[in-house]
Amino acid sequence: MFTGARTANTFSPTPVSDEELAEIWELAKWPPTAANTQPLRVLYVRPGPGRDRLVQHMSDGNKAKTASAPAVAVLALDSEFHEHIPALLPFRLELKDAYAADETMRTESAKFNANLQAGYFLLAVRAHGLAAGPMGGFDKAGVDREFFPDGRFRSILVVNIGHPGENPWFDWLPRLDAADVIQWA
Amino acid sequence: MFTGARTANTFSPTPVSDEELAEIWELAKWPPTAANTQPLRVLYVRPGPGRDRLVQHMSDGNKAKTASAPAVAVLALDSEFHEHIPALLPFRLELKDAYAADETMRTESAKFNANLQAGYFLLAVRAHGLAAGPMGGFDKAGVDREFFPDGRFRSILVVNIGHPGENPWFDWLPRLDAADVIQWA
Repeated sequence: MFTGARTANTFSPTPVSDEELAEIWELAKWPPTAANTQPLRVLYVRPGPGRDRLVQHMSDGNKAKTASAPAVAVLALDSEFHEHIPALLPFRLELKDAYAADETMRTESAKFNANLQAGYFLLAVRAHGLAAGPMGGFDKAGVDREFFPDGRFRSILVVNIGHPGENPWFDWLPRLDAADVIQWA
Repeated sequence: MFTGARTANTFSPTPVSDEELAEIWELAKWPPTAANTQPLRVLYVRPGPGRDRLVQHMSDGNKAKTASAPAVAVLALDSEFHEHIPALLPFRLELKDAYAADETMRTESAKFNANLQAGYFLLAVRAHGLAAGPMGGFDKAGVDREFFPDGRFRSILVVNIGHPGENPWFDWLPRLDAADVIQWA
């Protein structure tokens, strides 16, 4: 999962079923988040009118890839994730009020934990045997107006999902030397 | 990796070798980041003076756990990650200047991608057969002064690492219903 898959740039026409997409989430939901807050939300977009609505908000360099993806996930954070705390962390109800009272802390926490969960999501796509093509190049405000008009959810990443097509892989880009990343104490 | 491991709260006394810690990074480094920027940095802290220096900056509820962890990783972002772009994305050198000119964009990008990589890192610990105990409860400014005094690296998460001890697991906390997370278009 870590070393056997790369970001896919072309997909085969093989469809991705709603069941497969639901199963990806059943994997991705388990790894941990701070205070079990789980702020990530997933909008699955299938071929057809939904995908057309999404493609118009993608950067020019990403439009064709997204228009040919068998499925697309728009990953978003829930800016009001604390509403779920009574169900998710019932023995720490005071956290709901703490998040409600401090929008800056709430937003920072939503970003941090949704981004962690986005990492889990990308690896869950691969664990399910599918290829993931994550893209930061899109008009976030446009996507949010299009799909999340009440302002509660905010898009963070768009991920094309499918079975690898012909010549789907770029060569590996280099990774930093361990000496540039790791320190010891 | 997704469903077979939970956050560990106690560890066995079995040591974790430097080689194991280095191997975790060799897994965690592969999944993708935007423009291949790889802004995550890892400070591995072993038992002894380094761990003592770290424990003093942990929240009270996390001090004992960290003081008994066979190894600890301080995950941090590199606020000057763009310095590596000539090696990491040599065909897009203009990105280095773009990040250099816009500190807000650079910081947002560093946070987003380092947080993604933190998710990869936690799953890489588990993929290596070890248990990970991630903690957001620590004095970030204190840790940064202690270990990253030049201000370039900024801590984002502390992760206890070890072999599971006796009764290491809390019961699973509930996960959100799929209907609360997934939308379709």
